Amino acid sequence: MNAKATRQVDELRETIARLHHQLIRYNLVAWTSGNVSARVPGSDLMVIKPSGVDYDDLSAATMVVCDLDGTLVEGDFAPSSDTAAHAYVYRAMPEVGGVVHTHSAYATAWAARGEAIPCHLTAQADEFGGEIPVGPFALIGGDDIGKGIVATLSGHRSPAVLMRNHGVFTIGRDARAAVKAAVMCEDVARTAHLTRVLGDPAPMAQADIDALHHRYQNAYGQRGTSAATS
Amino acid sequence: MNAKATRQVDELRETIARLHHQLIRYNLVAWTSGNVSARVPGSDLMVIKPSGVDYDDLSAATMVVCDLDGTLVEGDFAPSSDTAAHAYVYRAMPEVGGVVHTHSAYATAWAARGEAIPCHLTAQADEFGGEIPVGPFALIGGDDIGKGIVATLSGHRSPAVLMRNHGVFTIGRDARAAVKAAVMCEDVARTAHLTRVLGDPAPMAQADIDALHHRYQNAYGQRGTSAATS
Amino acid sequence: MNAKATRQVDELRETIARLHHQLIRYNLVAWTSGNVSARVPGSDLMVIKPSGVDYDDLSAATMVVCDLDGTLVEGDFAPSSDTAAHAYVYRAMPEVGGVVHTHSAYATAWAARGEAIPCHLTAQADEFGGEIPVGPFALIGGDDIGKGIVATLSGHRSPAVLMRNHGVFTIGRDARAAVKAAVMCEDVARTAHLTRVLGDPAPMAQADIDALHHRYQNAYGQRGTSAATS
Amino acid sequence: MNAKATRQVDELRETIARLHHQLIRYNLVAWTSGNVSARVPGSDLMVIKPSGVDYDDLSAATMVVCDLDGTLVEGDFAPSSDTAAHAYVYRAMPEVGGVVHTHSAYATAWAARGEAIPCHLTAQADEFGGEIPVGPFALIGGDDIGKGIVATLSGHRSPAVLMRNHGVFTIGRDARAAVKAAVMCEDVARTAHLTRVLGDPAPMAQADIDALHHRYQNAYGQRGTSAATS
Repeated sequence: MNAKATRQVDELRETIARLHHQLIRYNLVAWTSGNVSARVPGSDLMVIKPSGVDYDDLSAATMVVCDLDGTLVEGDFAPSSDTAAHAYVYRAMPEVGGVVHTHSAYATAWAARGEAIPCHLTAQADEFGGEIPVGPFALIGGDDIGKGIVATLSGHRSPAVLMRNHGVFTIGRDARAAVKAAVMCEDVARTAHLTRVLGDPAPMAQADIDALHHRYQNAYGQRGTSAATS
Repeated sequence: MNAKATRQVDELRETIARLHHQLIRYNLVAWTSGNVSARVPGSDLMVIKPSGVDYDDLSAATMVVCDLDGTLVEGDFAPSSDTAAHAYVYRAMPEVGGVVHTHSAYATAWAARGEAIPCHLTAQADEFGGEIPVGPFALIGGDDIGKGIVATLSGHRSPAVLMRNHGVFTIGRDARAAVKAAVMCEDVARTAHLTRVLGDPAPMAQADIDALHHRYQNAYGQRGTSAATS
Repeated sequence: MNAKATRQVDELRETIARLHHQLIRYNLVAWTSGNVSARVPGSDLMVIKPSGVDYDDLSAATMVVCDLDGTLVEGDFAPSSDTAAHAYVYRAMPEVGGVVHTHSAYATAWAARGEAIPCHLTAQADEFGGEIPVGPFALIGGDDIGKGIVATLSGHRSPAVLMRNHGVFTIGRDARAAVKAAVMCEDVARTAHLTRVLGDPAPMAQADIDALHHRYQNAYGQRGTSAATS
Repeated sequence: MNAKATRQVDELRETIARLHHQLIRYNLVAWTSGNVSARVPGSDLMVIKPSGVDYDDLSAATMVVCDLDGTLVEGDFAPSSDTAAHAYVYRAMPEVGGVVHTHSAYATAWAARGEAIPCHLTAQADEFGGEIPVGPFALIGGDDIGKGIVATLSGHRSPAVLMRNHGVFTIGRDARAAVKAAVMCEDVARTAHLTRVLGDPAPMAQADIDALHHRYQNAYGQRGTSAATS
């Protein structure tokens, strides 16, 4: 790596370590079961969580750097066992700069039933632009999970996919946007669950969902940042 | 602003920043999704949260000041995307000094079904004086949300309204009272949900609800403060 | 008060202030809605929480002292609005040294349906010796709540009563035992709720419930302390 | 004890005290209701929590040492009332180095119905290799609980058993692995509960469950450590 890439990698190690604490704060992970990664801009590298390391021990120094085939390039630990899925997404979706994976409970319950989360909340329209879709069942250990994520999210408004019997993957233009999508996915999954437990949600018109999504993606947040990053 | 107004604004910036931490503490918000505002007493100004700024970065300095048309008067950030709704309430309801908006999960589940929360708890009778009503579906971006809030809460005992498919707005004589109403709204929404999951609540007589509400609004708390502010 | 009573009161102010933080830690209270008191041993006094004061502002200094008619004897604040109920219990049940009141959500949901919590858990047999009973609906402001608590708990193994449409009152030989009962009441109310949501609990034999209760009340904890206080 | 055993015991006192904080962090315990123990390698001793001591007061110094009949060998407090069950497991299963007991709410709800948790999640396949089984109802105070744990888990892939009407016991090659199993047991119990509340889970093929379990037990985590300890 040249000096600029080294600087970028150092900053991303710090950022990615810090973002894992948002997964804990919002109660999206148990033990070592979720992970965040970021593409190193302008290179074929990614920064990702090491495998099976306690969240308390995550720091810039323990993060690892892999190439986009998932091969370890730099770091003292083996990369996350989900590295192949993250890498596949970066190879297939050049606009994606961050990927998050969790087994957050409410979203994973929808995934376990193989049910998409229908859109009956303005917050879901804002962030996801409609339903949160279900992806296929796929075994870990090759490109199957990555392929399932990409096949489901390509051309879809939602930055989150519910992988059947498994959990959630989210994407974003950077890692922070992907973490935000993971937080909001669990939040709407929970409210949608509570809604359905006692009856049927009031319907929302597709035109309203479209209008909310368009506005949120273009007008929310501070000038010069997109909704996805603020 | 004159010196007195400046002092008031500075104090309210501090108060409003601090009150946002109650939204986090009671788990009413995810990411940047809730907001608190206060009317600057005796002026046509309000202090409100900036849009899309992390709760960790909220401080007196990051709060913004708007006039009651929602136009930015002072501050380094764009105001909350819900500013128009807050402003409408302040224009239409001169007795209101604070407004809060959340998507707290249990209350929003009732809102998503378009169901008012019936009163079967003494705590709900105390704070809300009966059912917590449902307001209309309304799109963000104009006065529709504000109009829906005002139409529902004018002449109603409840300081909270469940905006259909959206979330909660609460009002109070000051911001602290509105935050209390938001906390209590989620608390009774949750207990009412849990009650209904396993059967039917025992009925409460209207006369008992009336007696509890009257007493709480007039006798609870420390002398010289109203229930709504203690 | 003589010197000994003053020392006792000072210690209890400290103890009671600290025990309120257990209510927060176990998520039993919202805003200012729960309270703990203790009888001052050998006197006709009690130490109790002030009314409507933030949990963050509770300290030994803000606690108040009342006689057993509920009249303020010492302190800068008005006593809890539930003081009459605590006082009635101390007058009627001389063996009781501590009383706690909460609206903890799962227990209050059973109370709102007017349903006792049946005993299908060893932890409930240990602490409560069988079902957790329901008390009558009663309005605040006189002795009705206190009478309902005493009528329900006198001669009952359970130190907790679910007051209909209201919430939980617990008693103990001291305030710590009453707080423990409040924590365990919510814990078993929650597990009993989750059990019932998906089916029927496996039955427990009355002889097993009796054996568990007898053992726990006599053998658990450190030598020289009872289960109720350890 | 010789010098080596003394050093091992001192280290385990520290480790076991610290691991109890994971039970609190993941909300698996109320008041003093859960416990962790570890076998002292190469000896007939175990380190375990004292009975009825507050989690805040747990430290290396308050832990106690017992022999594998459950008799106190070293320490200032009486051992946990569940010591006999832990001791029985160590006597009967020489490969077990750590045991954990909790009444965590979702898992205990399955135990109260006497229902095994069926496997519909990749995370459950990873850690438990299939369903989490139910053990018999057994009274505390002798070897009955220990026998029930051993009879259920011997030859079973799952390191967790749901003891009927009671709670969870987990085992591991060391205490950390047993704590991990307790955390993951509650996590999958919760997701399985939420799944079933709104319908039926999508089926998983036995061959997929087998493949996931085999991979996780052999490939996950850092080189040189097993999944169970990382």
